[in-house]
Amino acid sequence: MIVNCKNTLLISYQANILPNGKSIPFNFINLCIMNIQIITIGDELLIGQVVDTNSAWMAERLNESGFRVERIVSIGDSPEAIIEALDDAASRVKIILITGGLGPTRDDLTRDTLCKYFNTNLILNSEVEAGLESFFASRGKPLTDTNRNQAYVPEKCVPIMNLLGTAPGMWFEENGKIFVSMPGVPFEMKGMMEQFVLPKLTEKYQLPPVFHFTVTTVGIGESFLADKLSEFESSLPGYVRMAYLPGPGMVRLRLSCYDSSKEKEDAIRKLGKTMEELAGKYFFGEGDLTPQEMVGNWLTKTNSTLSIAESCTGGYLSHLITSVPGSSVYYIGSSISYANEVKTQFLGVNPEVIASKGAVSEEVAIAMAKGVRDRLKSTWALATTGVAGPGGGTPEKPVGTVWIGVAGPGGVTARKYHFGKDRVRNIQMSALFAFNMLRNEMFVSEKS
Amino acid sequence: MIVNCKNTLLISYQANILPNGKSIPFNFINLCIMNIQIITIGDELLIGQVVDTNSAWMAERLNESGFRVERIVSIGDSPEAIIEALDDAASRVKIILITGGLGPTRDDLTRDTLCKYFNTNLILNSEVEAGLESFFASRGKPLTDTNRNQAYVPEKCVPIMNLLGTAPGMWFEENGKIFVSMPGVPFEMKGMMEQFVLPKLTEKYQLPPVFHFTVTTVGIGESFLADKLSEFESSLPGYVRMAYLPGPGMVRLRLSCYDSSKEKEDAIRKLGKTMEELAGKYFFGEGDLTPQEMVGNWLTKTNSTLSIAESCTGGYLSHLITSVPGSSVYYIGSSISYANEVKTQFLGVNPEVIASKGAVSEEVAIAMAKGVRDRLKSTWALATTGVAGPGGGTPEKPVGTVWIGVAGPGGVTARKYHFGKDRVRNIQMSALFAFNMLRNEMFVSEKS
Repeated sequence: MIVNCKNTLLISYQANILPNGKSIPFNFINLCIMNIQIITIGDELLIGQVVDTNSAWMAERLNESGFRVERIVSIGDSPEAIIEALDDAASRVKIILITGGLGPTRDDLTRDTLCKYFNTNLILNSEVEAGLESFFASRGKPLTDTNRNQAYVPEKCVPIMNLLGTAPGMWFEENGKIFVSMPGVPFEMKGMMEQFVLPKLTEKYQLPPVFHFTVTTVGIGESFLADKLSEFESSLPGYVRMAYLPGPGMVRLRLSCYDSSKEKEDAIRKLGKTMEELAGKYFFGEGDLTPQEMVGNWLTKTNSTLSIAESCTGGYLSHLITSVPGSSVYYIGSSISYANEVKTQFLGVNPEVIASKGAVSEEVAIAMAKGVRDRLKSTWALATTGVAGPGGGTPEKPVGTVWIGVAGPGGVTARKYHFGKDRVRNIQMSALFAFNMLRNEMFVSEKS
Repeated sequence: MIVNCKNTLLISYQANILPNGKSIPFNFINLCIMNIQIITIGDELLIGQVVDTNSAWMAERLNESGFRVERIVSIGDSPEAIIEALDDAASRVKIILITGGLGPTRDDLTRDTLCKYFNTNLILNSEVEAGLESFFASRGKPLTDTNRNQAYVPEKCVPIMNLLGTAPGMWFEENGKIFVSMPGVPFEMKGMMEQFVLPKLTEKYQLPPVFHFTVTTVGIGESFLADKLSEFESSLPGYVRMAYLPGPGMVRLRLSCYDSSKEKEDAIRKLGKTMEELAGKYFFGEGDLTPQEMVGNWLTKTNSTLSIAESCTGGYLSHLITSVPGSSVYYIGSSISYANEVKTQFLGVNPEVIASKGAVSEEVAIAMAKGVRDRLKSTWALATTGVAGPGGGTPEKPVGTVWIGVAGPGGVTARKYHFGKDRVRNIQMSALFAFNMLRNEMFVSEKS
């Protein structure tokens, strides 16, 4: 049943009974929300040369403001496909956000196709032209004809200034529908969304707030977790939806409410705490944060610092830690050693130990963690040494064997893991389980 | 005009004349190809909690085999949305690949919805059950009822064994259409695609080969490059399509042919070489490789090694280098120094130079590059020191100021860059321009 209410769609779902007699526990009732469709345009998406990261970013920001993305469609740089996608989207939702195909080159067809779709013409916009002139002047470059052409925008649209690039965005309104076209370059799209599109959409629609509560677990499979939480899940009130979001080595649990209130939020927070208790030793952290953001919070709260000695993770662990703004407060530095000599040169690992025990060993993981902690004078230190693959495995130490070491105020410890055959996954899993070991050690030291 | 030919769609595009009188240079003639639609299922995609990386990976692999992804659609875990998307896809293409919603938990609705869609029942598949038993046995875990339930598959499908996880895939054929449902976990989906889906699709359809020739440029904007290549682009034969793929700091140029032959490939390779010459000093590398793969090739070919001293890039540069399988042949190690003391401890940078010139300075970039090269005894060394932001900027050294140093057999040099205000972009751009500086130095030393 779909009923139009003021500016929103009121959708009520019923439990769906399938032919096999099982019911689909779709427990939304009276979901009052403004639906949005995202269309991303570009042949590069369809041949896999570029991963569409724009949609997830947009969806997350829209969601925070109470909008719901009901569908994401990626199509190629073809006028026919663009027009068909616009027609289809307009038949479903009131707001259509489009990215891509706005560049100055000939394979960029979105602007001209939008002209055709809205039956309008391109006109020179002096504000956009002035913006382009100052954009290039500030970079000491001339405004070429190719770029001046970008100052031509469809007569029917409100142009959106691009402060971070050259292609203006376009805001069309027709037959009660909003169409917004933005560049595909993530950086430029984000600027327009934050400076113009999100504020304008939020001003136009007053929506019921959306509330999510997320808990991250590490080291337990989705099905085992589901068994642990089965009773809890069955007892959830109708306005709460629960989802399992599995990733390499982790499962995030999300409770969502799409028509939230202070009371419901409080109730969901309490339910979230119960969920954390049920997850027990697999509970890693609370909130929609990345593991590295959680690590940053633990270190900041305990006023402690971190150094890292990486081998098989090759810089990924340090990159995760330093991808968090403000990480310079708690992160000191790292050594990355592919060659064994680096472990000796930077960390003082005894070459005889490497020779006798092998670089992938408990002894070396411990010596690395201790070495980097002592030399860089940090509260905590993490170390990884393993066989990421695809080469380098032996019968005793096959690809996927990883030793992770943690050194801290209470001493140093190391643990062996077997992650499997995939290089990328081994690197990701090693980083996650290093964070998880750090968490365990921090708790133990807090308790002691 | 769309004409059906044996197992393929023959599409001929005409130049599209828009209302503004401009033509759309869509220069495909007689494109003979098998179209595929990808449907990715999961609420996590629509709230932006997960980026859909599956589609790009699948598209790339399909493309290599001559299939063309015509559209990617992401929808939520809702039976209505799934059924509608299946209907819509089946009206467009003959092959529909689906990922997501196959987990063992209640929010996973794809299997039951496929049962409903194909009007069939779930039956216990003993082969899948045996696979599940051995999967859990090998991990020393019991097969729970929740997981045993995954051995029930729709009667009408051919189940696809999942060697890397628990949810089986499903291959349906109905009314001349193929529907393949796979798990959303990238690792498991990739296993099924490689072991079963791609071989079976390739066996079923004999398709004209697709050929792409890609060139990467660094340090020139899309529009300036387009001006340089305007004449070249106009002169391309009708069977070649040219695309500009801009990324942070780089533009990739791609020539594509969707009905290739030995003669056409040779012709396109020649055109590619012309394109490289026209790009001049901005040419970075050839082939559909990442910059770090290209760096790996340069080092391997010249039998040289690399060490890295990172500050503002925080491990990202080393992570890129070590993300390439086999990088242990040429990569020695790195120091990452957020705290100034690490620059002294690991690299011997004079603390007085840091105090007098500042950590973000030509002198420190040079000392870092020299220090890491001397200590780790590599042929080449890269160093980065800068203000990634958002904090740490000053009027003299605003956020985005980065010094990059390169040390090699011919000496050491450093260059200052201004990348802007965005932390992630500053880190990415610093890494790319470090690779670009390495490339310039390697060429100079080769020539001298």
